[in-house]
Amino acid sequence: MGKSLTRKIIESHYVSGSMVPGEEVFIKVDQTLTHDINAVMTYLAFEAIGLKRVNTECSVSYLDHNLLYVDFKTPDDHIYLQSAAKKFGVYVSRPGNGICHTVHVSRFGKPGKISMGGDSHTPHGGSIGMLCIGVGGMDVATAMTGVPMRLKMPRVIQVNLTGRLKPGVNAKEVILEMLRRVTIKGGLGNVYEYTGEGAAALEVPQRATITNMGAEMGATTSIFPADEQVHKFLKAQGREEDYVELLPDEDAVYDERIDIDLSELDPLISCPHQPDNVIPLSEVERQPVQQVFIGSCTNTSYADVAKAALVFKGHHVNENVSCTCGIASRQTYKELLRDGYIDMLLDAGVRMLEISCGPCCAIGQTPATEGIAVRTSNRNFKGRAGNPNAKIYLVSPESAAATAIKGTFASAEEILGEDIGILNEVHEPENYIVDDSMLIKPLPEEEAEKVEIVRGPNIKFLPIPEEPQQHLCAPVSLKGGNNISTDDITPASAEFSSMRSNIPLMSQYCYHRYAPDFAARAKELGTSIIIGGENYGQGSSREHAAINPMYLGVKCVIAKSIARIHKGNLVNHGIIPMLFENPAIYDKIDLFDELEIDNLLDQVPTRRVEVKNKTKGFSFMVRLDLSDNEVEVVLCGGQLRYLKKQLAKMEEENA
Amino acid sequence: MGKSLTRKIIESHYVSGSMVPGEEVFIKVDQTLTHDINAVMTYLAFEAIGLKRVNTECSVSYLDHNLLYVDFKTPDDHIYLQSAAKKFGVYVSRPGNGICHTVHVSRFGKPGKISMGGDSHTPHGGSIGMLCIGVGGMDVATAMTGVPMRLKMPRVIQVNLTGRLKPGVNAKEVILEMLRRVTIKGGLGNVYEYTGEGAAALEVPQRATITNMGAEMGATTSIFPADEQVHKFLKAQGREEDYVELLPDEDAVYDERIDIDLSELDPLISCPHQPDNVIPLSEVERQPVQQVFIGSCTNTSYADVAKAALVFKGHHVNENVSCTCGIASRQTYKELLRDGYIDMLLDAGVRMLEISCGPCCAIGQTPATEGIAVRTSNRNFKGRAGNPNAKIYLVSPESAAATAIKGTFASAEEILGEDIGILNEVHEPENYIVDDSMLIKPLPEEEAEKVEIVRGPNIKFLPIPEEPQQHLCAPVSLKGGNNISTDDITPASAEFSSMRSNIPLMSQYCYHRYAPDFAARAKELGTSIIIGGENYGQGSSREHAAINPMYLGVKCVIAKSIARIHKGNLVNHGIIPMLFENPAIYDKIDLFDELEIDNLLDQVPTRRVEVKNKTKGFSFMVRLDLSDNEVEVVLCGGQLRYLKKQLAKMEEENA
Repeated sequence: MGKSLTRKIIESHYVSGSMVPGEEVFIKVDQTLTHDINAVMTYLAFEAIGLKRVNTECSVSYLDHNLLYVDFKTPDDHIYLQSAAKKFGVYVSRPGNGICHTVHVSRFGKPGKISMGGDSHTPHGGSIGMLCIGVGGMDVATAMTGVPMRLKMPRVIQVNLTGRLKPGVNAKEVILEMLRRVTIKGGLGNVYEYTGEGAAALEVPQRATITNMGAEMGATTSIFPADEQVHKFLKAQGREEDYVELLPDEDAVYDERIDIDLSELDPLISCPHQPDNVIPLSEVERQPVQQVFIGSCTNTSYADVAKAALVFKGHHVNENVSCTCGIASRQTYKELLRDGYIDMLLDAGVRMLEISCGPCCAIGQTPATEGIAVRTSNRNFKGRAGNPNAKIYLVSPESAAATAIKGTFASAEEILGEDIGILNEVHEPENYIVDDSMLIKPLPEEEAEKVEIVRGPNIKFLPIPEEPQQHLCAPVSLKGGNNISTDDITPASAEFSSMRSNIPLMSQYCYHRYAPDFAARAKELGTSIIIGGENYGQGSSREHAAINPMYLGVKCVIAKSIARIHKGNLVNHGIIPMLFENPAIYDKIDLFDELEIDNLLDQVPTRRVEVKNKTKGFSFMVRLDLSDNEVEVVLCGGQLRYLKKQLAKMEEENA
Repeated sequence: MGKSLTRKIIESHYVSGSMVPGEEVFIKVDQTLTHDINAVMTYLAFEAIGLKRVNTECSVSYLDHNLLYVDFKTPDDHIYLQSAAKKFGVYVSRPGNGICHTVHVSRFGKPGKISMGGDSHTPHGGSIGMLCIGVGGMDVATAMTGVPMRLKMPRVIQVNLTGRLKPGVNAKEVILEMLRRVTIKGGLGNVYEYTGEGAAALEVPQRATITNMGAEMGATTSIFPADEQVHKFLKAQGREEDYVELLPDEDAVYDERIDIDLSELDPLISCPHQPDNVIPLSEVERQPVQQVFIGSCTNTSYADVAKAALVFKGHHVNENVSCTCGIASRQTYKELLRDGYIDMLLDAGVRMLEISCGPCCAIGQTPATEGIAVRTSNRNFKGRAGNPNAKIYLVSPESAAATAIKGTFASAEEILGEDIGILNEVHEPENYIVDDSMLIKPLPEEEAEKVEIVRGPNIKFLPIPEEPQQHLCAPVSLKGGNNISTDDITPASAEFSSMRSNIPLMSQYCYHRYAPDFAARAKELGTSIIIGGENYGQGSSREHAAINPMYLGVKCVIAKSIARIHKGNLVNHGIIPMLFENPAIYDKIDLFDELEIDNLLDQVPTRRVEVKNKTKGFSFMVRLDLSDNEVEVVLCGGQLRYLKKQLAKMEEENA
């Protein structure tokens, strides 16, 4: 029976457990990545664990998300992160070098390796045949210790691509089409493995657009084979030696199959407020657009931006539009500069932002009141761009450029007409400009030991949850709807993301936008329980969406379903994720209802827990979709306590 | 008796009044400029005045300071400003086009004209023989009506420059040397007129560095002759027709003379926390520097940045330094791009920020805790960069580049050694790339009338002060020290500057950093009086430093001395500026002392007012350094009430 590429990579990293989909497998992790706005907690956890140095082949700390420095907090975080990286043998990618995913795949990623990153778009690296999984910050800290990582063995879905993209149709349309079909929660527990002659024709950065934004389906990850395109890419990066061919077996067996004929795709648009709200661009109502953002890790490869520039050539940004462009990496910027594309963008009146992640997660470029913003990034959640009353639409760079020119939604074809074919003449460079001068290499161990970690006043302790007790009786402090995102729980933005090193401060803003009185209420209640709908905790991997409620005394989340990364974060930080056995019970619970659980510690290992609604006088059952290992972590009171126990045990065994 | 250039220009714009230094003269103003973070109040005032269209030769609204868009407020302001400009016949310089002063001198400024700008660095335009004065926003609104503007007739100081700057010594050193000699308050009431063969050799952007930062001496303005350099500059801008030669008479009589031999200047540095704290760069203690910023209107001409790039060539930004570069205009950026200098900066690891004003006034790039930041901008007030515990040092771009490489204070010579001479081979382009596509021209009157002004929810009313009463009895709500800047009164920064359209909100943060309890206290007291030391209200022209206290009930400021622009703003917004006749009285007044003034309305025209300290039981005299016109404005209750009366009177006369 032939194997999928996903299965092959997991097998080659297998340590223990079961390789049956849905069951728990433990794997070795080769690489990790973190970025500035999520990572301080990760390195604080690594400090707390007490190891001298990371035990991975390669760990990289990217300073790439919050480069605005609106106050002292982010520069302090950057100094802390740089000193911690030096101390623990971690690479630093300095501010200005580029967005983590783009830089990582270009300079560090290797086919067949497994990486875990503290960012939901880590699957970007699936573009070179690497298994890349977005996880919470505590998971990254764990992976850095070298301890095998738990993974729910995924189902593997074949996505068979045929045909070729028409000019003016971008890889973005492939993932928007996937989102349209699969929906934002349909990918839970799945790896999407792209195959077929259509896939073979896609260049690595095009593949990255697809695997990156596969996160929006809730998937474990997405992957393309390490084939001739990957060979070409690594060679162009001066890293041919890192190439190995890695393909699924010809007779590989998959759990499911999706077929897409690329030649049938037309420009698509994702409408507010969920990425799967996808319709043909031609069908969207032509309202005035105030902002266009061509940027983000998802969609600013060399070819992406060059195509946008070609759409702009001889045209100008409409006078009612502010059009910004944030290129994903210094390497790409330099390529585009050399080839005259930056000139074209400037000539068209595009505002060139600093090379950084930024606007995608509301770090700058917030839309105006009731504004319409069109972006090439990956998320359009309500408020994701910093303004809950704005509307965000997601499109390709070509469509974004056309929209900026017209001042309303438009496709590249509307600008280029018969010349649209020129877009398909743009390809990635045969040789990228390689310049690693903005990477700081790990220090040798003896030098690293002497490094002092620098801690600004906003960098507080890592809160460690209490161990759970047998008896829990607590009121409901929040009843949330469907699709609550981690942005709803802990907003991004320049202001809030710079608070992430300071939980006592940041927790005051927990659910700030969604339920402004939540933080005060939860604090007053002391301990409490959150009720959620479907797909609770979707979106960004930020573990602060678990840490802040935990710090405010939340003991369990009971929801209809919980997004993968967020569930892991809840477990890691001592909040028990529970699922309604009968979703209809959701309607029978109200804010402030007193919920009681007896014998909690005995019930958890059975994965079924009885909850009594004391206020309303009825009982109901919840399921725990937890692996054996996750049960153990829950009973320990979170991952840090668990990990310290594990490491102590290992040390004892070795002694 | 020969005339200075300053006198010639004032004479040619004379309407009424006296041309004796210190007395009041009324002049015609040709041009105005505003920028986004100060201007909403200006256009609200213009709306309140009720004219259909500006009555100037040219008025420009620059959207250039706050391009971070950290929330909806600034994009809303930009939309408001753009719609107001359309309505009233004002040019718009779109976000991304560049900083007001640089763009204005390049595309609009004309020798011999008078401009008033709602920004203290308006004197930048003195570089082309134009008389450019920084004023408060209400003054700009007044100037836009075409009503003659009051000006305290300045003393004119000749600054005779001889010799040539050595390589590695920038025009920045000239103005730092001036600041060292004149001090931050020594320039009050003066125009500095640069002459001599040393001046003749300075290119227009070099002159602009000097006139721009002349604001730091508290001067009315600074000016260079319109000579061959100006001819060359305007020709390179494709505007030869705007050139007229304008020189002082050979036997011009000046009120004072300063001599500087340029060839004797060595690299200088302005140390925290005042721009006049200037010492030789070689004498500054070599501490580690965390941030370098090469940017601002003051010092990012083509030649400035090219020289910095040449220092960087073959070197790299030190790994402990974050070095950012914000070029002042799109035109300069394109020139530098064409000539390979942007490449050099990128190669060196410099972070290229968006083309905007930004970091200079804490809109991004705040220094770390206790951090040391080295900047090419014009101000180093405590907290000016967004972090009061950081230290800001001001240097030239060449020294800034050297510092970024070394990681501690350094001069270009320390990097270039014997090659330092290459820096003097860099000159401004003979032909600038002219592209006005980011300027929006005023609409024809009939189209303009139809424009609807767009007002976001943060754009509140313009508060109008009450008329003063005969009897005033109020407690002291604040006793400030010397050199309180408008940054202390109303901070800049991305967060605060986006509040400037909303006085009820922003006033809550009045004196936020300097005296955090002031706003609540003033509000509780109802009406109150502020006591200040020397040079009260120095720095930025922002009138919010007057509007916010007025909104909080402050009726007078009694200080040892008051900075020029701020005094005008107090008068405009109905706060009476008073000066101790005996400065020693300052020491005898405490917070909460009850001060009483009888017959205020009768005393104001005499310019001497008796104040009784009821709490301490003594009386003292204060001086009012006010012109006849200012007295009239004070008695009206501020400029808007005065102006409406004037316009009504004019209409009556015409009827």
